[in-house]
Amino acid sequence: MPSSAIDYARQNQSRFLEELKALLRIPSVSTDPAHKGDVRKAAEVLAAELKRIGLENVRLIETGTPEKPGHPLVYADWLHASGKPTVLCYGHYDVQPPDPLDEWLSPPFEPTERDGNIYARGAVDDKGQMYMHVKAIESLLASNSKLPLNVRVILEGEEEVGGEGIATFVASKPPELQADFALVSDTEMFAPGLPTLCVGLRGMIYTEIEVRGAKTDLHSGMYGGAAPNPFVALAQIIARLKDEKGHILIPGLYDRIIPPSREELTAWESLPFDEEHYRQTEVGSKSLVGEEGYSVLERTWARPTLDVHGMPGGFIGAGAKTVIPAKALAKVSIRLVPDMNPTDTFALYQSFVQHLTPPGVDVDVRLIHSGEPCLIPVDNPYIQAATSALKEIWGKDTVFIRSGGSIPIVGDFARHLNLPSVMMGFGLPDDNLHAPNEKFLISNFHQGIESIVRFLETVGEPAEN
Amino acid sequence: MPSSAIDYARQNQSRFLEELKALLRIPSVSTDPAHKGDVRKAAEVLAAELKRIGLENVRLIETGTPEKPGHPLVYADWLHASGKPTVLCYGHYDVQPPDPLDEWLSPPFEPTERDGNIYARGAVDDKGQMYMHVKAIESLLASNSKLPLNVRVILEGEEEVGGEGIATFVASKPPELQADFALVSDTEMFAPGLPTLCVGLRGMIYTEIEVRGAKTDLHSGMYGGAAPNPFVALAQIIARLKDEKGHILIPGLYDRIIPPSREELTAWESLPFDEEHYRQTEVGSKSLVGEEGYSVLERTWARPTLDVHGMPGGFIGAGAKTVIPAKALAKVSIRLVPDMNPTDTFALYQSFVQHLTPPGVDVDVRLIHSGEPCLIPVDNPYIQAATSALKEIWGKDTVFIRSGGSIPIVGDFARHLNLPSVMMGFGLPDDNLHAPNEKFLISNFHQGIESIVRFLETVGEPAEN
Repeated sequence: MPSSAIDYARQNQSRFLEELKALLRIPSVSTDPAHKGDVRKAAEVLAAELKRIGLENVRLIETGTPEKPGHPLVYADWLHASGKPTVLCYGHYDVQPPDPLDEWLSPPFEPTERDGNIYARGAVDDKGQMYMHVKAIESLLASNSKLPLNVRVILEGEEEVGGEGIATFVASKPPELQADFALVSDTEMFAPGLPTLCVGLRGMIYTEIEVRGAKTDLHSGMYGGAAPNPFVALAQIIARLKDEKGHILIPGLYDRIIPPSREELTAWESLPFDEEHYRQTEVGSKSLVGEEGYSVLERTWARPTLDVHGMPGGFIGAGAKTVIPAKALAKVSIRLVPDMNPTDTFALYQSFVQHLTPPGVDVDVRLIHSGEPCLIPVDNPYIQAATSALKEIWGKDTVFIRSGGSIPIVGDFARHLNLPSVMMGFGLPDDNLHAPNEKFLISNFHQGIESIVRFLETVGEPAEN
Repeated sequence: MPSSAIDYARQNQSRFLEELKALLRIPSVSTDPAHKGDVRKAAEVLAAELKRIGLENVRLIETGTPEKPGHPLVYADWLHASGKPTVLCYGHYDVQPPDPLDEWLSPPFEPTERDGNIYARGAVDDKGQMYMHVKAIESLLASNSKLPLNVRVILEGEEEVGGEGIATFVASKPPELQADFALVSDTEMFAPGLPTLCVGLRGMIYTEIEVRGAKTDLHSGMYGGAAPNPFVALAQIIARLKDEKGHILIPGLYDRIIPPSREELTAWESLPFDEEHYRQTEVGSKSLVGEEGYSVLERTWARPTLDVHGMPGGFIGAGAKTVIPAKALAKVSIRLVPDMNPTDTFALYQSFVQHLTPPGVDVDVRLIHSGEPCLIPVDNPYIQAATSALKEIWGKDTVFIRSGGSIPIVGDFARHLNLPSVMMGFGLPDDNLHAPNEKFLISNFHQGIESIVRFLETVGEPAEN
């Protein structure tokens, strides 16, 4: 099927890539207060670009409160396709911190091409994927002076820190977000060249456990044997939160889980997945871990898991300091699957951590942020249009997968706006998101733009019967 | 017993204190390269003073290597008491960093008198105590034109950074350190006015456990349930290294322990120690911890203990990062008591940590540094002379205590030079060493000088029978 928008996208590939590089140079690390200005700069650059390509009502929407201001949302629309569906294109322009810096082969905010990839923090998560939407819309507008359907764009700058601002905005059911479906490109293809739609996401609670012992840091020679050690207490708590097989020991945690259907499990078994290849190339550990009796895909897509991300406190420099720190922290998250919910899970967890607290220390358990798990129905016309468009561009049937990660906004779209999401992602399993040397395959960036062009054209076509 | 040296010391109290203040004004912070010149200045001031009071062969002895120069030792001697014993007076002129500065009531390097104390960094640890030796020797020489025994003085400027320079010097068994016993004033009195000799020190192994899982940092959503988590592995290891009662579970660890004698335990029981006061004022935790069946003094002086000082790795910033780190570390130390030794203890520990290693991760166990425990025999003439001198000056019988900390040089003196040490300290438990508002009780400074005068006179007296 010939498309002038596809031609336009192909003719402008090198400019599109240079524009993406400019965006990647802005260190919009949302968790770091020092980068607050950079986050806003990224929003302003995107707003200017959305206006330049011809979208309307472009503006920043502020989030947070006067006491605790958030990062802005970017909004734009084009609503002149009378009688056609409306898509809500979602993406995020904030990125994870780049640490550890010394493991990057090229600087995280100096986009560098190597082996057909572009390397930079945010290359795939999510600036590169979000920018595919912008460039697909530009291609459609520039080649036809109009769009095949109505478009709204909403971009957030807090996805990597919990997305509180957009969650509040979505919950208010604003007219700006009235649409028929959402397009979300923040997931990955199951394998290179294999078109993929993600139809399930895990939720999460991200927490901190703070343990306090002595009133001040003490010398471990003088006080070792009398003063409680907060790190030892944390180790004792963490070691009792799950067993050595990865089974979480929090009472009641598994009660509300709905297992995948027999059909879904069968489809997963036919996916091109080689566990040994996955272990070697993606994980690289001597063996994989996790609950017995479940495949890797089940464990990462459809089972709750518990991880520790860091344990701040005490002495972390080179060499030795013989301190018993007054306090220590553990950053702990639990991934949730349908039909667990964050509030109840946190309550079970908090109560169990308190129960596990050893003598001599006080413990606080804090919820940093959370997101609901979600499961997308696949029997709607938008999913059908997506598989059709993907077949045209990639020449293969689409596979339906879940993701172990959390995209809380997808659940919010469903719950508050009744929008089904089409999660059409073009990342690859080895893209190192949230890690050093994050990358995006440049050919996927371009084929992703073409896929979105054809997807939006297909949704906007008159029904054939 | 009248002593002209004591008279001299009493007549010169105010000058001695002013000289100490001048020494305390030199910010000889050995860990801070910016203060390297100040550390040397303190050494030069002391060398000049040792020469002025009449000691001989005064000189600085350089330490370290051309690539990594250390801080100098200060040496002096007076060896004209033919047929008399030789004392090696040890002290250190370097100090801890003064941070946190905003908690000091008066500036750390502007010595200030309040409530009978002198407040300054180094007031008690160890400039004030080390200077007592200098002023005791001055009093003896000035009042008698000779000393009652042979004296060597060795002062180091690296005690607060590991003491590598003096350790190397001692291990070379130099003629400058040939002596019959060492006098070390770097410990404290058990309670105000209670003359105290420290006769035991714990040793230590300071280690790092490094756990490696995946080859790179991974996203906990994508890989949680398949990738090993190094912090969880460390928690499992640490939780199994000792039980909740503080009993260390390393097989064989307790085999070589020589418990304190019945007499020593009885003596400890009669010390003025209020556990509840100690918990409230020194530790400040909701309760004390440690092995059942042992008193606080036994647990901190005569039992091995295991502490975790920090757990570097992963994400330690504010907020959330959903990373499964590729590796994580734990800084773990074990305090040793007689007759444990660092080499064997580390071997038992290393082997047990390897045994505890859960599936999916690799573990390295590294020894950072170590020190031998030591126990000073109390049935030697130097300890007898010390208790006799202390009784004269303080009017009370001496108590023998141990310290839970490590003073590696005492072990080095014993091992390499066959020197017993007399650890005669005049600090007090609330002197805030290594903390803001370090102080030294001025009356202890003066009575300490008198105690040392009488101690050296007593050692030099002809045997009475």
